[in-house]
Amino acid sequence: LSLRLFIPTERRENEVETSSSAASAAPMDPDAVAKAFVDHYYRTFDVNRVALGGLYQDASMLTFEGVKIQGAAAIVAKLTSLPFQQCVHAISTVDCQPSGPAGGVLVFVSGSLQLAGESHTLKFSQVHYP
Amino acid sequence: LSLRLFIPTERRENEVETSSSAASAAPMDPDAVAKAFVDHYYRTFDVNRVALGGLYQDASMLTFEGVKIQGAAAIVAKLTSLPFQQCVHAISTVDCQPSGPAGGVLVFVSGSLQLAGESHTLKFSQVHYP
Repeated sequence: LSLRLFIPTERRENEVETSSSAASAAPMDPDAVAKAFVDHYYRTFDVNRVALGGLYQDASMLTFEGVKIQGAAAIVAKLTSLPFQQCVHAISTVDCQPSGPAGGVLVFVSGSLQLAGESHTLKFSQVHYP
Repeated sequence: LSLRLFIPTERRENEVETSSSAASAAPMDPDAVAKAFVDHYYRTFDVNRVALGGLYQDASMLTFEGVKIQGAAAIVAKLTSLPFQQCVHAISTVDCQPSGPAGGVLVFVSGSLQLAGESHTLKFSQVHYP
């Protein structure tokens, strides 16, 4: 992911990441899995960012502002060190497709992010894949 | 992909797709592969959209405006039936990460799209993965 969060002219963030639980071998409808994952991920991000660690593995990678960050611990360290404490994600679109050898799902999310004390929202887009 | 291209309040498109050649087993630097693929893909889109067919297989999927389209022929039919003839993509960001069992690369692209005869540009983001 590249979080283009702090470029004032852009006002958006892009994220790409591999996580352990975006999906694997889903008996549910893939769109329902994707929606449930997205709801869970961003609610967790907003209320208890450190708990996102459970969604990553040592092989997971997060690209943030064009910088690649490898492993659950480093990813959580990055996410919890972002220069804002409170935020609320609002999801605009959730698209998913099959991905990976184990029946996983790639999820492409876009939306906006409201930071505490900021009047503007930031647009973001993020890709999650197993 | 969802091409959110025609929602005036959004003015952006999101695309997710599987293609055969986004990457597989690259001896080159993954970032260089991603950049070369992106340059090739959007230059081809802008000058000869039908030739994008060579980048897809029967198992490829394109999500466009939230609608899933399966197979190279159907994907090309969709791309060539878009309600504009000439366009120019300008790339803003290219992020890539390892993806897939064969040493492939996932590429997350954002940028803008200028349509012939339109003064505004459309923002787009698109994910390519093997």
